[in-house]
Amino acid sequence: MEPNKGLVSALFLFFLLHETIASPTPKPHIKPRPPPHHPCRHLTFYFHDIIFNGKNSKNATAAIVGSPPWGNRTILAGQSHFGNLVVFDDPITLDNNLHSAPVGRAQGFYIYDRKDIFTAWLGFSFVFNSTQHRGSINFAGADPLMNKTRDISVIGGTGDFFMTRGVATLETDAFEGEVYFRLRVDIKLYECW
Amino acid sequence: MEPNKGLVSALFLFFLLHETIASPTPKPHIKPRPPPHHPCRHLTFYFHDIIFNGKNSKNATAAIVGSPPWGNRTILAGQSHFGNLVVFDDPITLDNNLHSAPVGRAQGFYIYDRKDIFTAWLGFSFVFNSTQHRGSINFAGADPLMNKTRDISVIGGTGDFFMTRGVATLETDAFEGEVYFRLRVDIKLYECW
Amino acid sequence: MEPNKGLVSALFLFFLLHETIASPTPKPHIKPRPPPHHPCRHLTFYFHDIIFNGKNSKNATAAIVGSPPWGNRTILAGQSHFGNLVVFDDPITLDNNLHSAPVGRAQGFYIYDRKDIFTAWLGFSFVFNSTQHRGSINFAGADPLMNKTRDISVIGGTGDFFMTRGVATLETDAFEGEVYFRLRVDIKLYECW
Repeated sequence: MEPNKGLVSALFLFFLLHETIASPTPKPHIKPRPPPHHPCRHLTFYFHDIIFNGKNSKNATAAIVGSPPWGNRTILAGQSHFGNLVVFDDPITLDNNLHSAPVGRAQGFYIYDRKDIFTAWLGFSFVFNSTQHRGSINFAGADPLMNKTRDISVIGGTGDFFMTRGVATLETDAFEGEVYFRLRVDIKLYECW
Repeated sequence: MEPNKGLVSALFLFFLLHETIASPTPKPHIKPRPPPHHPCRHLTFYFHDIIFNGKNSKNATAAIVGSPPWGNRTILAGQSHFGNLVVFDDPITLDNNLHSAPVGRAQGFYIYDRKDIFTAWLGFSFVFNSTQHRGSINFAGADPLMNKTRDISVIGGTGDFFMTRGVATLETDAFEGEVYFRLRVDIKLYECW
Repeated sequence: MEPNKGLVSALFLFFLLHETIASPTPKPHIKPRPPPHHPCRHLTFYFHDIIFNGKNSKNATAAIVGSPPWGNRTILAGQSHFGNLVVFDDPITLDNNLHSAPVGRAQGFYIYDRKDIFTAWLGFSFVFNSTQHRGSINFAGADPLMNKTRDISVIGGTGDFFMTRGVATLETDAFEGEVYFRLRVDIKLYECW
């Protein structure tokens, strides 16, 4: 009898556990909150934006393609550039040197969305096609430019970055007038497949 | 022998369960479907959009910055505003009163994308920097404006809303002509970290 | 005593397993990597884009609404259309026939973002309201048009596609001049709720 009893306990335990593990639980998807979160992947890059100003056609990597009624598409508008839509295809480098060999392209747009201070909304991708990285990382979010660091969302990825999600911290590393600026991007991925 | 037998059952059970739990399963990521899903976080806000019309420069929180060939950037175009790109920086309030103290800013754009009825595509963020909320929630999706309620995606978040995902239900709460409209946003987050 | 011993082992095992399963683990969210990943849902559609060119007002499903300083909004600009923002409301069909009964609408925008080759950044939704599908799928990502296939991200969904995520592979199935093009979209969803 004794071993049977042990077996019964074990079987009871099995069903108990099985229930706990396998049944569709009506609980919300609250993920564990380890303090703090550790990224499963961490990457740092720089990208370099040169806005077309009517004279720099050869070097420009970005252009104003939308403007408010009071603006035009050659000079960023007054009122904190509110309403300027800028499209870009910027080189990505591993260090802060514009002339380093690019490891990919940052492609997408930003749109200045506030009249009293500089803020923008960003939608763009990092597109890689090198020996080191192949695939893309997609970003979206608000960029309050005057803050030293700003967090946006990594909303997806493809190739080497298949299905990834995370947070990217932007930092304006340098700028020259209203034509050139360089961003440092610290990418922390928290969902890796 | 008896206790050993119990132990053997238990160990067998352990490996059985271990296999079930820990092995990389080649199954697709079908999440449990508790009927219905319960959000892990639920928030309701209002935001207020005042489109620049050439006369309301002081109060306007939005401006037309793109238009179809047959339109301009001061008056929303015919054919259901098809082709108008609007950028906004709208106050977020807890109730439906435009003059309540804002708790954040709704920043981003919408673009009217249909000729025969009013529909738009939205990309925007809720940006919070108050004692109650700090961080951002990022949204994207189609907004068939003529429907009483419309669902868009919460595609990510930062700060207090780190890595969140969910669904936001939009409802046009009020509007005045083609200048002012107020949206009620019911944010249901299903992934909370 | 014997059965007790078995029970003790079993209980010990329970707590051991319980600890393993339920405790908040400080490990990063590295999801299992079954080689290869299998989608939990797989859908294929076609959509049809007819760009307004000043003469096709009746049939056009898309229009240029932003352009670089050197362009206009009736003809796609030189330099690989760099800076052209196009908004669309395209019919979705199950086969490659423009005249098949549409099963939904592809709504959103693309913006050409490179001067030397054709590339664009896409933000759009598939909106379904039929007996077969109800809800929306939201997409974002870079589209290097000259590649035979291009992967973008499925960043969320609503209705029948509640909370989904995945990867969509785009392929230019046909085009006529710079007015009509047809895309084949292979949607692989890896997170299904």
